[in-house]
Amino acid sequence: MGRGRRPVDEVRADILQAAGSLLLEVGMGGFTIEKVAAISGASKVTIYKLWPSKGALALAGYFDTVSESLAFPDSGNIEADLREQLHAFADLLVTTRAGSVIRELIGAAQTDPELLSAYLATYSAPRRALAIKRLDAAKAAAKLRSDLDTESVVDQLWGACYHRLLLPDQPIDRAFVDTLVDNLFRGIA
Amino acid sequence: MGRGRRPVDEVRADILQAAGSLLLEVGMGGFTIEKVAAISGASKVTIYKLWPSKGALALAGYFDTVSESLAFPDSGNIEADLREQLHAFADLLVTTRAGSVIRELIGAAQTDPELLSAYLATYSAPRRALAIKRLDAAKAAAKLRSDLDTESVVDQLWGACYHRLLLPDQPIDRAFVDTLVDNLFRGIA
Repeated sequence: MGRGRRPVDEVRADILQAAGSLLLEVGMGGFTIEKVAAISGASKVTIYKLWPSKGALALAGYFDTVSESLAFPDSGNIEADLREQLHAFADLLVTTRAGSVIRELIGAAQTDPELLSAYLATYSAPRRALAIKRLDAAKAAAKLRSDLDTESVVDQLWGACYHRLLLPDQPIDRAFVDTLVDNLFRGIA
Repeated sequence: MGRGRRPVDEVRADILQAAGSLLLEVGMGGFTIEKVAAISGASKVTIYKLWPSKGALALAGYFDTVSESLAFPDSGNIEADLREQLHAFADLLVTTRAGSVIRELIGAAQTDPELLSAYLATYSAPRRALAIKRLDAAKAAAKLRSDLDTESVVDQLWGACYHRLLLPDQPIDRAFVDTLVDNLFRGIA
């Protein structure tokens, strides 16, 4: 069976994988639709049918690539699960090119409203929703305060890491993310 | 007495005030050394003697301009003081051009190492130090946990706000910053 007859889901998955690995290898500076086409074997026409722009494709590929390593475990212990997920997040930011790719994307998005919209829609909002789903389930199971605003927790865990990523006054490491979890579960007073 | 004979501290203060108000009025796009010279009455030569670049001057002017409204109250009640300071910070970000200026500066700094260094040295680190000083004093007075990592609190209060400023999935307002304080003082469990 020729390439042209492969199911669209399979082609889509190949393109996303190609886009994500290319992005982590070369950053946004070297990321082109041509290269994604060459790696995935899909045509540029097919790629443009599925994603409106290079930025949208890069973001979708990034989301796809990091989804597995940033999965939310569900052991029934929300504190332990958050710690494990945040360790993986800190590792990803520090030990791969993901940190510098994210810095570039968020940086450029501040003066590019279309890229910002794509970032929010394709990466930030879906990742946020995954965290909220897990936090709301823990709240429903009475593992978190019944009046907790779970959205704010996202800003105080992952948001605190993005703060250090973009303004590196202080390092990001496993000790840091553990401290973030400690502060929220033990309180600071 | 002619302008040339004014004490350097006075000239410096005039330049900083001119730079800060110009920046909040026109943003980085319209910010020039020429305009700061015209507003302050100082010469471009004098300005370049005191600040190495346009970015450094903009940051110094910004720090100077917001310092008064972002002062840390000291009532002896650290929770109330944090709330008051964070209300002022949220107001500044939302009701003035400060939020968009900061977004532009942090955004551009992601691909401009010199601007990032200037941002950290001239704005981020000194503001962070002011917060740490206040938090460490409260810790010494046993108002905060004796083993608290005060650096992490900066990321979970102001950092959480920067996260929403740069990635506006959710709004910044007084209710939000109150929630950040609540989470840290009451815990989330």
